[in-house]
Amino acid sequence: MADREERIEKIVSLIVSNWKRLSEDPFQVPVGISARHVHLTREHVELLFGGGYELTPYKPLSQRGQFACREQVSLLGPKGCIEKVRILGPEREHTQVEISSSDGRVLGIRPPVRTSGDIKGTPGISLRGPKGEITLQEGVIAADRHIHMTPADAKWFKVSDRDKVNVLVPGDKGGMLKQVTIRVSDAARLDFHVDTDDANAFLLVQGQWVSIRKEESI
Amino acid sequence: MADREERIEKIVSLIVSNWKRLSEDPFQVPVGISARHVHLTREHVELLFGGGYELTPYKPLSQRGQFACREQVSLLGPKGCIEKVRILGPEREHTQVEISSSDGRVLGIRPPVRTSGDIKGTPGISLRGPKGEITLQEGVIAADRHIHMTPADAKWFKVSDRDKVNVLVPGDKGGMLKQVTIRVSDAARLDFHVDTDDANAFLLVQGQWVSIRKEESI
Repeated sequence: MADREERIEKIVSLIVSNWKRLSEDPFQVPVGISARHVHLTREHVELLFGGGYELTPYKPLSQRGQFACREQVSLLGPKGCIEKVRILGPEREHTQVEISSSDGRVLGIRPPVRTSGDIKGTPGISLRGPKGEITLQEGVIAADRHIHMTPADAKWFKVSDRDKVNVLVPGDKGGMLKQVTIRVSDAARLDFHVDTDDANAFLLVQGQWVSIRKEESI
Repeated sequence: MADREERIEKIVSLIVSNWKRLSEDPFQVPVGISARHVHLTREHVELLFGGGYELTPYKPLSQRGQFACREQVSLLGPKGCIEKVRILGPEREHTQVEISSSDGRVLGIRPPVRTSGDIKGTPGISLRGPKGEITLQEGVIAADRHIHMTPADAKWFKVSDRDKVNVLVPGDKGGMLKQVTIRVSDAARLDFHVDTDDANAFLLVQGQWVSIRKEESI
């Protein structure tokens, strides 16, 4: 009985806090902070971890079907090395390394700001796994700031896939992030993805709600 | 003769570029990126570097009378350590450690955003020099974003000491930095000081010109 009351209380408090948030500003998105990570092809999984090796999911990510893996690799740049970089699954058609601009300083690589998947002409890097090392000719990016949403969300926010919007952040180091790409897909779950540089600069907290503003309103 | 012509060419190109900048936007400031650093009292200089020790200036800073020293210390936090942290001179009345939020993650300290000198109630830290170690009870801050300017600059920008303004940054990771403190003094030289987190997030470059916007215009 107490258990049931507790559950009701939780649901009521969730409804109240969501209602409060929506009545303050109906155009808000939760923050998801992406640390540096790597997406691998089947071939590269085998070169780094051994023939026939399968990645081990250990934590689901906000976007349906995506997961963090137990496996990690080292990034070897011309100037430095970063160890214990997480692999994200599932496997992809192209290997891609997503780092922040400050990671780039450590490695000696300048990652261009790109939307995930758009790696043509980007810098290369070497990866070291427990069973081998590979050198990519391209694939290192600083992922653009982006908001995952469903078509229904897009209707609510009055935006379309690939639109650019602004995001307002309150606080001691508040401000506005521009050039935020809208990414609409059926499998999406509403999430505003920033890298650790943006999170540190704006003092963003995982799960915090922030406000979208349309480009033309600025 | 060639030397004289070269100098004239340089001066003309400087005038043209300044004129272009001013005609595009008359309210711009140059960016100065501050890496983590430490200000020391006389007493702490002696405890870290030895009795009677004098700091060695090796590079003047943008603000008159301020200089980077040859001397460096290690920061020892509860979670980690950062080596080779630069001392800035001259000596001060209070020892102060200015780090970024991401430095704070490495050290295991959450630096509050404060204006330089305002250290009451801030976290402590230990410092290690070649001749000794000290433990501060307070003094660790993340310096607020601020713009140094003279009273004449303040008149031009129509702002007063301690005002808060916004700064606009263009580019792939552009946006707006809010909560930027105006600091007016006779000895100032116009400079917009940000920490390395802001520099990395906004892809700012040392010496780049960016635009001030008054708070009310947003």
